[in-house]
Amino acid sequence: MSNNRAATTQQSFPMNGGDGPHSYLNNSNLQRKATDACRTMIEEAIAQKLDVKCFSSNPFRLADLGCSVGPNTFKAMQHIVEAVERKYLAQGLKSEMPEFQVFFNDHVANDFNTLFASLPTERRYFACGVPGSFHDRLFPESSIHFMFSSHALHWLSKVPEELLDKNSPAWNRGRIHCTSAPDEVSHAYAAQFDHDVEIFLNARAKELVVGGMIVLLIPALPNGIPASQSPFGVMFDLLGASLMDMAKEGLINEAQVDSFNLPVYAASREQMTDLVKRNGCFTIERMELVYPTSKLVDRFCGNECGMLLRAGMEGIIAKHFGSGIIDELFDRFSKKSVEFSHQLESSKRGGAQLFAALRRK
Amino acid sequence: MSNNRAATTQQSFPMNGGDGPHSYLNNSNLQRKATDACRTMIEEAIAQKLDVKCFSSNPFRLADLGCSVGPNTFKAMQHIVEAVERKYLAQGLKSEMPEFQVFFNDHVANDFNTLFASLPTERRYFACGVPGSFHDRLFPESSIHFMFSSHALHWLSKVPEELLDKNSPAWNRGRIHCTSAPDEVSHAYAAQFDHDVEIFLNARAKELVVGGMIVLLIPALPNGIPASQSPFGVMFDLLGASLMDMAKEGLINEAQVDSFNLPVYAASREQMTDLVKRNGCFTIERMELVYPTSKLVDRFCGNECGMLLRAGMEGIIAKHFGSGIIDELFDRFSKKSVEFSHQLESSKRGGAQLFAALRRK
Repeated sequence: MSNNRAATTQQSFPMNGGDGPHSYLNNSNLQRKATDACRTMIEEAIAQKLDVKCFSSNPFRLADLGCSVGPNTFKAMQHIVEAVERKYLAQGLKSEMPEFQVFFNDHVANDFNTLFASLPTERRYFACGVPGSFHDRLFPESSIHFMFSSHALHWLSKVPEELLDKNSPAWNRGRIHCTSAPDEVSHAYAAQFDHDVEIFLNARAKELVVGGMIVLLIPALPNGIPASQSPFGVMFDLLGASLMDMAKEGLINEAQVDSFNLPVYAASREQMTDLVKRNGCFTIERMELVYPTSKLVDRFCGNECGMLLRAGMEGIIAKHFGSGIIDELFDRFSKKSVEFSHQLESSKRGGAQLFAALRRK
Repeated sequence: MSNNRAATTQQSFPMNGGDGPHSYLNNSNLQRKATDACRTMIEEAIAQKLDVKCFSSNPFRLADLGCSVGPNTFKAMQHIVEAVERKYLAQGLKSEMPEFQVFFNDHVANDFNTLFASLPTERRYFACGVPGSFHDRLFPESSIHFMFSSHALHWLSKVPEELLDKNSPAWNRGRIHCTSAPDEVSHAYAAQFDHDVEIFLNARAKELVVGGMIVLLIPALPNGIPASQSPFGVMFDLLGASLMDMAKEGLINEAQVDSFNLPVYAASREQMTDLVKRNGCFTIERMELVYPTSKLVDRFCGNECGMLLRAGMEGIIAKHFGSGIIDELFDRFSKKSVEFSHQLESSKRGGAQLFAALRRK
């Protein structure tokens, strides 16, 4: 139950806090659109698969894992509360309508002060913040009825250890991600993702009541599309190239780039399905690749990509390279994404969301 | 369930956040000593009055209302968890030992980021932060087994409205508190406290399970001692006099002092007893004035008093007068408390804690 282990071995990469121009709060449009696009699927999962009759006790508890600072989490939680209310009505349980309690979870380093200050005043639920990694236990046993996690589970708990060993074939020289990297690097990323999701599902299986559900929404890779042709793959390649340019000009050290790796991973539908089956505690109610990025954005413009990437990645980049390089780096990145706009544009078909609705057996 | 009403009519006065020299984190020794002094009483209340047999369901949920940023709240919660664990053992329920979930509550403006970053790594409970005023509902119905509130309930939800009316006999000219003030002012403070505690108890009665307990620890006034002879009374008089000195020197406006009032109130044992009886949902298991301030502090030194007062009151003073006056004001206050050290010293016998252990019928 202690978070001690987590604190020593896991890494924490919060989104940019506050409400400034580079904040996650003001640069999470893509995530919002992706969640919006799945509204109907969330509603259907609740309407068709959530049997609220088996939840005898008031209140109904739900959690958003990796909620960041809002506003996306508030929209999602409100939407789920309303869908659950409709389900109670549909099951003829109007008189047993529960009170709702929402647990907003993210890393300890997340800006909970901003999250709490932004809570909708007209909310129909009791709000709590839960600090801690979702790669560990967060809640008491059988205490949550519905969990949601959007654009969070693709964050690895840490950079795979092989990538930190200069003598390993997975030493990722001149790159910052497994995109366009040798197989050893990709395998190390995939193995870390497998390990993390295993721990994640074990923890959630303990915390969810029987019949409770979890809906996951994560960036994913369609079958047959290499990472280098997906939007995030192209962006990571361009960001890596920008860092290498700066290294060549002596602004940063090349060895620093070699030892830097972004701990994010886009899984395939098949990989995720295998992981859930291996865990064994959940039935898969729905598992689909949906809404390619091309449906979510009209066009990828350099500056927007830069802002999106910066809101999510500034913290981890600044931690490794120092905050002094950030403006210069994202300036170069923006220019590069204009230069490679055709490649970025054509990558949109390779970007997808994986929607997974699981039910606790 | 919405906090909307609260947000518009209540005022929020968080303790100083962060971990700087003027932070609550580093200036809450007196509160810690007061809580320490009541450790045994808390243990006794749990050992003798908490019947854990009637709590069938895992987990055991406890809450600290007005927790501020630590470290006092962590010590208190750990202590309560251990006492409850002993009670389970004592009742022969070792095999039913629950998991614990602790809800740390304070105003939305409280520095939850500092609180979360300071959480003990070896804690034996799942931690949540709950933003919101305890003069409103915070938790779902019948969802908490044990509540604790130390040095928080003496904060009024707002300055009594009569004090803001220049034409009222409760217009508190030249003072910043009901200490040494006309009866009308004292009555307005007492009425506001009654109103706030009524709302507080109504909310807690809904949230506590039957058989659940609440332990309150608040600064109180022994019978027959006027506020002006209690430690806080003397301090508020000296702080008010320091402000009036600054007004006379033209550093601030006298009208600003007239319209400023500290929304804190020290109740008597009798007043608190009446309020609990009037509410009707709780049995009074213990209600005692304990541990006069003289047992908690060797001597009241000017600087320490200043730091203590500043950690708790800086926010509200700065909001009214602007933050520019803070250093000057507390400098003057410290000098004044040296000058009036005898009065401060002799006030110690007038300072007491009220310990109340209530059980939900």
